[in-house]
Amino acid sequence: MGRIATAIDGQFDALLQVPDDARRELYEAMRHAAIGGGKRLRPLLVMSTAGLFNVDESCAIRAATAVEALHVYSLIHDDLPCMDDDDLRRGKPTTHIAYGEAAAVLAGDALHALAFGLLTDERTHSDPFVRAEMTACLAKAAGPAGMAGGQMMDLVAEKSKFDLQTVTRLQLLKTGALIAACVEIGAIMGRVPSDGRTSLRGYAHDLGLAFQIADDILDVEGDEQIAGKALHKDAEAGKETFLSLMGLERAKEQAQMLVDQAKSHLKGYGEEADLLRAIAEYTIERDR
Amino acid sequence: MGRIATAIDGQFDALLQVPDDARRELYEAMRHAAIGGGKRLRPLLVMSTAGLFNVDESCAIRAATAVEALHVYSLIHDDLPCMDDDDLRRGKPTTHIAYGEAAAVLAGDALHALAFGLLTDERTHSDPFVRAEMTACLAKAAGPAGMAGGQMMDLVAEKSKFDLQTVTRLQLLKTGALIAACVEIGAIMGRVPSDGRTSLRGYAHDLGLAFQIADDILDVEGDEQIAGKALHKDAEAGKETFLSLMGLERAKEQAQMLVDQAKSHLKGYGEEADLLRAIAEYTIERDR
Repeated sequence: MGRIATAIDGQFDALLQVPDDARRELYEAMRHAAIGGGKRLRPLLVMSTAGLFNVDESCAIRAATAVEALHVYSLIHDDLPCMDDDDLRRGKPTTHIAYGEAAAVLAGDALHALAFGLLTDERTHSDPFVRAEMTACLAKAAGPAGMAGGQMMDLVAEKSKFDLQTVTRLQLLKTGALIAACVEIGAIMGRVPSDGRTSLRGYAHDLGLAFQIADDILDVEGDEQIAGKALHKDAEAGKETFLSLMGLERAKEQAQMLVDQAKSHLKGYGEEADLLRAIAEYTIERDR
Repeated sequence: MGRIATAIDGQFDALLQVPDDARRELYEAMRHAAIGGGKRLRPLLVMSTAGLFNVDESCAIRAATAVEALHVYSLIHDDLPCMDDDDLRRGKPTTHIAYGEAAAVLAGDALHALAFGLLTDERTHSDPFVRAEMTACLAKAAGPAGMAGGQMMDLVAEKSKFDLQTVTRLQLLKTGALIAACVEIGAIMGRVPSDGRTSLRGYAHDLGLAFQIADDILDVEGDEQIAGKALHKDAEAGKETFLSLMGLERAKEQAQMLVDQAKSHLKGYGEEADLLRAIAEYTIERDR
């Protein structure tokens, strides 16, 4: 995990060299948000899935960086005063605190575009069909039928009382769609045809939900210093979560059940999928 | 122009059917910003260039919608209180005035992703190489080396005294990059190889600058009712523009010279390029 985090930092450092012109602050804001910190779970998922199919690591790391760029953009925008209004992220001031709101909006927008630029670059994959399919996958995961739609539901959640079914759908869109895209992109890079990705999709679906339940538990039980971000936000905002709807005991059981289920989807793979299995375990054991 | 505006509205209407769930407001905000109003200059450029090479219109209109989606996202974010803080756009309240800031940020983000989703869709072009190349082109035009970078320079312009060279670079990034991408995407769809696009690139470069000089003149001389947006903003913000740096007479001459030059790049084309020539003339004659 540390090796991949270092590699992702290196990619962003190379991509975001600060120009000597009036765009300086934009690049600095992008670097602030993108480099250092973060679990880099999404890049790890891309790399681990691509690894199943012997995808060249120097290509996979570029796709992994694209997905992380998209994730970082979403964090910058989610933290804005008009959204979740957060001051702390990955143990650092959020981008709008450090660089102002305007630069933060733009840094998010620029990372959003950068993600698609990376996926369509020949150095990321030599086959244009693979590039187009990866990009389509990420666009769908990011858009109104994915992450942006889930984020909208999350805003509405503050004013509504969602039931478990609606919270599940919210989280499948808000965090699940991008997590699923990581696994899908890894498989696309490995030229696995769509109907050969069914078990990996099952893994990603269950992993995404387990991840979010763990996040909800962390929001209540976690340590802000270790998590590197503000916690206890959901209860304050009056939002229903997996935890508020299921209770701590059942939520923990459910998360473990989902992890077991995620791993069972990998039974067709041998030890080459051990990393994906370990990621599933880590998802609910993490403290940040 | 009216025909294309209607077709673009139809595309957005079909793409943005409001779902019966908590994402309703997101789709409504996207529709508010994307449907109705606007010159649709960028779609017209895509369609006209694609038309030179006999690209299927039903495909070209989808790429044109993608570019417009990207443009609309940039307008939504540019109008935010932390950016230009505008209340009026295309004769309607801006998205954050109508739907609140959070929904406006998300509507912009979702349109941004939608643009890339459209370009990578098989229905937009059957050749994955074309899809990947169009997407790469749009991503570059939108990112820190394009529109987002230009927008950052524009923010800095309020606090600095830019010279003509820097204002030119700012505008080539902020509006020129996307205008150039429209022409490039039309040619990519027509399978024109990169070295066959040189004259079209020259046309787009000069058109983009003429467009911006005309915009600066409109900002001073225009009628807010007709323009459908707030004017006289640059002087109020203390920003240097083509107009402030060149004076009205020289700016008008320069715009006309650029239009003539843009048209001269098309001399290798016959009457099939008359629409592109007419667009160049329109660019400096418009009142909105």
